[in-house]
Amino acid sequence: MGLDHAATKPHERMNARFEGKLASVSALIRERMESRHAPRIPEVTAHLVEAGGKRLRPMLTLAAADLSGYVGDHDVRLAATVEFIHTATLLHDDVVDESAQRRGRATANLLWDNKSSVLVGDYLFSRAFQLMVETGSLRVLDILANASATIAEGEVLQLTAARDLATTEDIYLQVVRGKTAALFSAATEVGGVIAGASDAQTAALFEYGDALGIGFQIADDLLDFRGDAAATGKNPGDDFRERKLTLPIIKAAAAADAEERAFWARTIEKGDQRDGDLDRALELMRAHGAFEATEAEARAWIARAKAALEALPAHPVRDMLSDLADYVVARVA
Amino acid sequence: MGLDHAATKPHERMNARFEGKLASVSALIRERMESRHAPRIPEVTAHLVEAGGKRLRPMLTLAAADLSGYVGDHDVRLAATVEFIHTATLLHDDVVDESAQRRGRATANLLWDNKSSVLVGDYLFSRAFQLMVETGSLRVLDILANASATIAEGEVLQLTAARDLATTEDIYLQVVRGKTAALFSAATEVGGVIAGASDAQTAALFEYGDALGIGFQIADDLLDFRGDAAATGKNPGDDFRERKLTLPIIKAAAAADAEERAFWARTIEKGDQRDGDLDRALELMRAHGAFEATEAEARAWIARAKAALEALPAHPVRDMLSDLADYVVARVA
Repeated sequence: MGLDHAATKPHERMNARFEGKLASVSALIRERMESRHAPRIPEVTAHLVEAGGKRLRPMLTLAAADLSGYVGDHDVRLAATVEFIHTATLLHDDVVDESAQRRGRATANLLWDNKSSVLVGDYLFSRAFQLMVETGSLRVLDILANASATIAEGEVLQLTAARDLATTEDIYLQVVRGKTAALFSAATEVGGVIAGASDAQTAALFEYGDALGIGFQIADDLLDFRGDAAATGKNPGDDFRERKLTLPIIKAAAAADAEERAFWARTIEKGDQRDGDLDRALELMRAHGAFEATEAEARAWIARAKAALEALPAHPVRDMLSDLADYVVARVA
Repeated sequence: MGLDHAATKPHERMNARFEGKLASVSALIRERMESRHAPRIPEVTAHLVEAGGKRLRPMLTLAAADLSGYVGDHDVRLAATVEFIHTATLLHDDVVDESAQRRGRATANLLWDNKSSVLVGDYLFSRAFQLMVETGSLRVLDILANASATIAEGEVLQLTAARDLATTEDIYLQVVRGKTAALFSAATEVGGVIAGASDAQTAALFEYGDALGIGFQIADDLLDFRGDAAATGKNPGDDFRERKLTLPIIKAAAAADAEERAFWARTIEKGDQRDGDLDRALELMRAHGAFEATEAEARAWIARAKAALEALPAHPVRDMLSDLADYVVARVA
């Protein structure tokens, strides 16, 4: 291609390839956020949608459709659909997490109130639903209905499992599927479906999205402890302070002796946290090799994502998706 | 029919006619509430679903399908769908209203927390979505997607308009459509669609549901002031205390002199309520004939609902729907 790939990040290269389509997605999002009757809706959503993020999920749909040879504009509708679903879950998550910051800005629940976050989230979800109906594909609707159920179930599971030291890596995986991977895999799968790709190809696209999403979330959970605030927009240790049992803590707690177990029980289960506890937590995770083990797990999922791509025909977008998978774990190295 | 109709309420007679189908609806609801991973979900929903209510919305779907000659079991799926959507909106409403009681029992947000109410509501909505996809009808999906958007938009509108004395009867009507009528009209319309009814017949079924829903909600708002707690399960004046601008207050405020306007501004807009304010509010509404005018409006919508039924073929279920409409306003007489 003559381009120096090392110089640009894979999602930036994808952004360049899908520039026109992404502009259509943004226009469609703005159009469907409008509410004749309730101006609070675009106020709340513009705040979130304009804050940006990388538009990763819509790009996955556009990429899957493109490499499956799709010609038409349902890919744009479905890309907007997944971004609406994602934004709706962010709004509801902020209520659940009692968050004050999202994407480096004050959250909607802080600027307006929890009520607006709940109801505007519902509105966005219903708009997503309308958009997918417009594609006229029952298979697309089936995939997104199932993804929605997995997302909601994962969120409830996280709520009840979050502070329970008995949480296993299996439960963590189910939570991560709901929280992240279900929408990634739906985003890639519907891109293939809308293009009329073969069953083998849509299955590979699903596999890629699922494994990428899991690898991405594990990397994110690792970054919460090892990242720097300037790059991630989050304060290191937020998950510990919010008593979230993510993979590094689960691994350290599984290897804990009696005294260490008492530490985790006090800080995570009881939520009794004192000065120096975060440092102690980091020390215990380091001592038990929890960060290395977590990173290895993220890398294994990314390898699985890349292996899934091998079932797809050679295509420049396939290479971009492969690079994107590498990039997800490169962040935590 | 030989039955003494005066002795039984119309929804009881409908209950008797659809006993078998309603049992299937209940079984399907229980089955789909299950969550292998997150036992919190059936805990929260069983609490709500078993509390009962009249199952009015599912019955509307069964009735519309029956009088359109439907044979099959998609009516049961759609009846469960509308009940799931209804239950999901109740869970979210309780968070928004900060309610402590629903159907005479403590609300889920009080028994568990707001987080569970938000996420379990999302789960139920996604289960509803899966059920409708199973009918394989894009038209049904389109109707329910649009109804969902109207519901969410109406809720947001209520949030922003609720305490604003400038709220007009037009805005109130939009709120009521979102809050109640959109799901009623979707419930009746999809019953016709699934039965392959003519466009004229599905339009009449929509009209009936829409007008019944509006009449029902206006009657409900009137009952909040005139009902007795034993019959309604609500404390009279709750809407006033929660500063909700319903039709009787809108009418009284529109006719208010300067001193009365100041009273409404203090109690509703500012929320500064003192002992004796509810009595004063009742007195003002009585003085301006707001209750009679509100009741007349409810009756006009019920007349419209019954007129819509005239476009349908003669059928015992059509007569039941007509009686049901009468019953809705008979409660407030």
